[in-house]
Amino acid sequence: MFIRNAWYVAAWAHEVGSEPLPRTLLGEPVVLFRGESGKVGALEDRCAHRGLPLRFGTVTGDTLTCGYHGVVFDCSGKCASVPGQDRIPAAMAVRSFPIVEKDELIWIWMGEAQDADESKIVDYPFHGGATPWPHLTHTQHVKCDWKLMIGNLMDLTHLAYVHKGTIGGDPDAHTQAKFDIFPDENGVRFIRWLLNSMPPKLYVDAVGFQERVDRWMEFEFIAPSTVKQFTGALNTGEGAYEEGNREGGFALRVFHHVTPETEDSCLYFWSGANGYRMDEPQVTGQLFQGLKTTFAEDEAILEAQHASLKRRPSPVVATVHDKAVVHADRVIRQLMAQQSEADLRTATAAQAAV
Amino acid sequence: MFIRNAWYVAAWAHEVGSEPLPRTLLGEPVVLFRGESGKVGALEDRCAHRGLPLRFGTVTGDTLTCGYHGVVFDCSGKCASVPGQDRIPAAMAVRSFPIVEKDELIWIWMGEAQDADESKIVDYPFHGGATPWPHLTHTQHVKCDWKLMIGNLMDLTHLAYVHKGTIGGDPDAHTQAKFDIFPDENGVRFIRWLLNSMPPKLYVDAVGFQERVDRWMEFEFIAPSTVKQFTGALNTGEGAYEEGNREGGFALRVFHHVTPETEDSCLYFWSGANGYRMDEPQVTGQLFQGLKTTFAEDEAILEAQHASLKRRPSPVVATVHDKAVVHADRVIRQLMAQQSEADLRTATAAQAAV
Amino acid sequence: MFIRNAWYVAAWAHEVGSEPLPRTLLGEPVVLFRGESGKVGALEDRCAHRGLPLRFGTVTGDTLTCGYHGVVFDCSGKCASVPGQDRIPAAMAVRSFPIVEKDELIWIWMGEAQDADESKIVDYPFHGGATPWPHLTHTQHVKCDWKLMIGNLMDLTHLAYVHKGTIGGDPDAHTQAKFDIFPDENGVRFIRWLLNSMPPKLYVDAVGFQERVDRWMEFEFIAPSTVKQFTGALNTGEGAYEEGNREGGFALRVFHHVTPETEDSCLYFWSGANGYRMDEPQVTGQLFQGLKTTFAEDEAILEAQHASLKRRPSPVVATVHDKAVVHADRVIRQLMAQQSEADLRTATAAQAAV
Repeated sequence: MFIRNAWYVAAWAHEVGSEPLPRTLLGEPVVLFRGESGKVGALEDRCAHRGLPLRFGTVTGDTLTCGYHGVVFDCSGKCASVPGQDRIPAAMAVRSFPIVEKDELIWIWMGEAQDADESKIVDYPFHGGATPWPHLTHTQHVKCDWKLMIGNLMDLTHLAYVHKGTIGGDPDAHTQAKFDIFPDENGVRFIRWLLNSMPPKLYVDAVGFQERVDRWMEFEFIAPSTVKQFTGALNTGEGAYEEGNREGGFALRVFHHVTPETEDSCLYFWSGANGYRMDEPQVTGQLFQGLKTTFAEDEAILEAQHASLKRRPSPVVATVHDKAVVHADRVIRQLMAQQSEADLRTATAAQAAV
Repeated sequence: MFIRNAWYVAAWAHEVGSEPLPRTLLGEPVVLFRGESGKVGALEDRCAHRGLPLRFGTVTGDTLTCGYHGVVFDCSGKCASVPGQDRIPAAMAVRSFPIVEKDELIWIWMGEAQDADESKIVDYPFHGGATPWPHLTHTQHVKCDWKLMIGNLMDLTHLAYVHKGTIGGDPDAHTQAKFDIFPDENGVRFIRWLLNSMPPKLYVDAVGFQERVDRWMEFEFIAPSTVKQFTGALNTGEGAYEEGNREGGFALRVFHHVTPETEDSCLYFWSGANGYRMDEPQVTGQLFQGLKTTFAEDEAILEAQHASLKRRPSPVVATVHDKAVVHADRVIRQLMAQQSEADLRTATAAQAAV
Repeated sequence: MFIRNAWYVAAWAHEVGSEPLPRTLLGEPVVLFRGESGKVGALEDRCAHRGLPLRFGTVTGDTLTCGYHGVVFDCSGKCASVPGQDRIPAAMAVRSFPIVEKDELIWIWMGEAQDADESKIVDYPFHGGATPWPHLTHTQHVKCDWKLMIGNLMDLTHLAYVHKGTIGGDPDAHTQAKFDIFPDENGVRFIRWLLNSMPPKLYVDAVGFQERVDRWMEFEFIAPSTVKQFTGALNTGEGAYEEGNREGGFALRVFHHVTPETEDSCLYFWSGANGYRMDEPQVTGQLFQGLKTTFAEDEAILEAQHASLKRRPSPVVATVHDKAVVHADRVIRQLMAQQSEADLRTATAAQAAV
C-alpha cells in the first residue's frame, strides 16, 4: 500500500515541458505536461474515450489532445472538445491531480484532492529560494521499495562498506562516531560527528585538507519521503563542533526525495549543492559526478536487498546503529495506519451517501 | 476467452513448407507443415511421447517425425510409427485441426471439429481467385487483444492523428466525412466519403492528382476477424460518388485478418493490392511499403492502448464516430455468448455419456 | 517440491574461493565461500541484519563480512561480530548448510541437518581418487525441471535424433541395440550394446577406427541426481562384449549430476574423462569440447520440453525404450513421498514440543 495523502515530487520543474512526460507514481500512470501559459497539468495517463495513454498526445494552449482520435482535455481533466461532436458526455473526463511548483520541483498530491494542503510541502530554500546554493539535479530509477532508500539514509555506518572508494573509508571511525538523534512526530533529525578524523578523498580533493578534520553529517527525515542532508568538515581546532562554525571548510547539501513508483520500484530525486567553492561551476559538476557514482553504489545494494526481502521479509535484526532507521520506520507505519483510517472514512461516507 | 468455433487464418500459404512452422493460435501451440503431397497438417505442437514440441521434428512424406526419439505422426495426428516397436499405443496421438487452403491463405478451425463448415470461410477473390489484383502480404505480430485491432479499423477518424504523415492529414475533413453504415448480424459495412477534398500525399504520389478529389473508404467487417477494405479516389466531377464510378483514379484493396494468439497478442495478416497501376510491380511494392509504415503506426498505438486497458478496462466513452465500433463489438459479444453456450452443451453431453 | 534430504553438488571445488559464490539451490539462495583455512562455508544468502545478500560481502579468516553494515558470520552461520556493538543478539544468525568436499566436488545437504550422513555421498574415484582419469569439468545452467535431465539420460535412443551430427547417427542401430537393465531400490543401471556397428565420427577421430566396432554404453543412475556413464568401443572381434575387455579402443567416462535450482531450472554439473589417450591433454580438451557441443544440443531440447510440459504435463505415453526412464521416475517419486513423510514428522514433533 501507499501513503497517498502526502505530497511527493513528481518531477524536476525543468523536466516538464510541452512534450508530455509519463510517470508511474504510487502505482498510477500519470502524464505531466506544461501548457503554453506555463501551468503544469497532471492527468491520469489514459484517455476516457478508448483508453490510449495520453502521453501519445500533443499540447495546445493549456490542453492536451489525445493522439488516437483527438479528444481534448484541460489541466483539470475536463474534456474541452470532441472532434466533430457538439455535446460532450459527462463521463468524458480524466482524473487530474493537484500540482504545486516550488523550489524547482513539481509536487503532486495523489490522495483525496480536498485534503491537499499546500502549506504542508517541505521547504528547501537552497534550490532557488532565499539561500540558493549552486547545484545539479538527478532523477534516479531504483528497483526497490521506497522505504529501503529511507532506511539506507538513516544508518550511515554503511558508508564504510558500500562506499569504500568514494565517501566511506575507515569502519572504526564510522561505528564510533558521536551520534545525537532528535526524533519527532513527523520524522527524525540526527547529527554524527567524526572528530579529529582523516578526511575522505573526495573532501581532500575538494578543499585540499592537509590534516585531520572534524566532520559532521546532519540528516533530517521529513515523512514520508524527504531527507535533507548537510555534511561538511573543518580542520580540527576551527570550532566546527565546539562553536558551531560551518564556514571555511568543506560543505555540501543534498536534497533527497523518494517517490514510490510501484511496490517494487521508486524514483529517487536528488540534488547536490556546492557550499565550498560556490563560484566555480566545474566544482559543482565534479561534486555531482561524485554523488552520482556514490548513489549508484547504493542502488546496487538496495536492489539486491529488495529482492532478498521480497523473498523473505523477516526477520530483520536491529543493531545499535539503527536508532534513526527504527524511528523513521515507526513514523512511516503511523502514516500508513492513518491512510487506512482515511480510506475507511471515505468508504463509509460513500456508503452512507447511497 | 476465445471464439473457437470460427475459421481463422493460421498462415499465408507460402509460409507453410517442409520446415515445421510453430504458431500459437487462440492460446494453443500449433505446428503447421506441408507434406510432400502438398497437403498441410496442423497438429498440437507437443509430442505425445515426452512432450517435446513437434517443431523440432522433420517432415517425411506427409508425416512429421519428432526430433527427440523419432515418433512419427500423420496430418490427422495419428501415430504412424514408433521406432523399434511394433504395437502403437492408442494414446500415442496428438490433436489435429481442420485446415483449408484457399485464396493463398491457410484457414484453421480450433473449435469442435464436427462443426467445421468450410462454406463459412470468407471469400476473397482478389488474392488469386476470379478477380486477382497484384498484391503483397505481411504477417504482423501485435501485442494487443485482437478486438482492439478490429476497433481500430472501425473508426477511421484516427487517420487524422495516428497517420498524420502517411494517409491521414486534415482532421476536419475526417470528422466531417459523409458516413453510411450497414450493420447486419454477421458484421458491419460502412462507407465514408471525403468529397471535394485534398488528396493525401500517398495518393498524389501514386496517380498524380492535381486537384481536389472525391475519396471513398469502404470497410466490411465479417465477424469474428476479417475486414475487407476498398479505398480510392477520383477527381471531383468524375462521378465516383454520384454514379458509382470507381475506374481511372486511385484504388487500393486491403485484406485484414486478426487471429488471436494469446489474450494479450494477435497475428495481423494483411495484404495490400494495387488497383491503379496493376502492371507495375514496383508500384505494388511501394504501396506495400507505405502500408507497412502505416500499420506500424497503428501497432505502437494498439500496444499502448492494450496495456492501458488491461490495467483498467473501463470506462470507455463512445463518441459519434464509434457507430461501427459499437456494432462490431456487439456482434463479437454475441459470438462469445454462443461459444459459451456451445461449451456448455458439449460439457453437458459429455456428462450424460458417463 | 524438492527432495531435500539428499546430498547434492553445490559447486566444483575449484569454483569456491575467497570470492563469495552465490547459487540458488532447491529454491533457496545460498552463498558459498572458502575461508583462509580452506574450509568451505555455505550460508543462506541473506544477512540477518537488513536482508542484503551476503554475496556482496568479503571473506576474512573463516568468516564472511556483510557488504552493507559489516555484520560478520562464521561458517556455522553464527554471528562473530557486529561493528561497534558488544552484545550480539541471539537472532543475529543465518542458516548454514552441511558441506562435504570430496572428489573435487562440494556436496551440500539442504534437508534436516541431523540426517546429513556423509557416508551416503556418491563415490567417484575417477576425479582425483583411487583411479584418476584426465578430465575437464563444466557447470551448465539449464532452464528445465531437473527430472527431465535424468529422463534424457535414461533413454539413449534420442542420440539418433538430437545428436545426429555428434555422437548419434543411425536410428536403426540405436533402436535395435541390445539392452540390459538392472533396477534396484536406489536407482537403475543399464548397458546398451551396438554390436558390429559403424563407429560415430567422434570415435573415429579419437582413435582412428577403420572398421566396424562393438560399442557399449553403460549408465548408472543413483537417486536422486547422479548418473555415472562409461561408454566406449573396440574393434568387433576384440572381445568387448564376449569377454568384457575394455582396453585398447575408445573409452570415455562422464560424471553427470543435476542439482535443482528452481522448479524450472537446474545446474548440470558434468565432467568428461579421457580413457583412451590419457597422456595427451589436448585430446582431453577435444573430448570436452565435443561433449559441450553435444550437451548444448540436449539443453535446447530440454528447455523446449520443459515449457511444453509446464503448459500441459500429461499425458506422456511410454515406449519400449522407456524402461530405465520409468524405473528412475518411480525411484524419484518414492524419495518425494519419503520427503513428505519426513516433513510431516518434523511438523508433528514441532507441534508436540509446544
